[in-house]
Amino acid sequence: MKRKVNNDKKSYNLQHSADEAQIRQKMEEHVKALCKIDLKGVMSFYAPYILSFDVEGTYVGVEEKKEAWTKIFSMIEPPLKYEIDELSITAGADVAFASCYNRLLGKLKNGQQIDSRVRYTACFRKYEGGWLIAHEHVSMPIHFENNKAVPDPG
Amino acid sequence: MKRKVNNDKKSYNLQHSADEAQIRQKMEEHVKALCKIDLKGVMSFYAPYILSFDVEGTYVGVEEKKEAWTKIFSMIEPPLKYEIDELSITAGADVAFASCYNRLLGKLKNGQQIDSRVRYTACFRKYEGGWLIAHEHVSMPIHFENNKAVPDPG
Repeated sequence: MKRKVNNDKKSYNLQHSADEAQIRQKMEEHVKALCKIDLKGVMSFYAPYILSFDVEGTYVGVEEKKEAWTKIFSMIEPPLKYEIDELSITAGADVAFASCYNRLLGKLKNGQQIDSRVRYTACFRKYEGGWLIAHEHVSMPIHFENNKAVPDPG
Repeated sequence: MKRKVNNDKKSYNLQHSADEAQIRQKMEEHVKALCKIDLKGVMSFYAPYILSFDVEGTYVGVEEKKEAWTKIFSMIEPPLKYEIDELSITAGADVAFASCYNRLLGKLKNGQQIDSRVRYTACFRKYEGGWLIAHEHVSMPIHFENNKAVPDPG
């Protein structure tokens, strides 16, 4: 079932369209860095104290986050495809958040196919140099009956 | 392993301590409403267009969210205990976000014990009447080997 997210949100919009555009661009650049398996590029979007509630675990600070990406990147056989769907951005004066579905397509070096769709929340802080991700949350829903993850149909 | 979240965050603090206090209070009141199984109270904290990436599924708008809480509340045998741990709040002028671990303790009407620890992100928008949750994300990490959920040790 395809549902429109935040369909009555327009009337609640904040007057920060330039910031919203900057964050949208940031997220697109982040995806480009991911697809290029560019660790330094990927890391440049995070605030130093990032708290990442990631799919497989929780990472506190850029060093732990870097270690996690290093491990993932070492397992991937390029090219990688990354799609953002149903992106919604709420930008304030100095804090913002974005939600979307992210789909990762590619394969591992061991030949295994990757086709993973996750729910993504990114929380931003505005610094002098621009917006950085200070907190993020990535997940798949879980069936309580068997405690198993299921891809979100969206 | 107990890790201090955002331990170097102080130097990045925004100057919105009154808003931070308001959000902290909102979250405490939300927990109180939950423990009282007070559906109307619980719902009063959400913006109309809430996008909820919840543990078991995704809910769009207050009607879907209300339906989800109604179902959960109908299964619970009071009293309910709800603990917030490692709460971190980043409040801007008009947008804010909070992260924490939530532990739910109690039992179902069928006698089954509940002891569930989840990672929680709440994204707030400031309205004339105060702060409301416009987006939230709740999850447990997943082991990729068997696709099973595991409680986050924190």
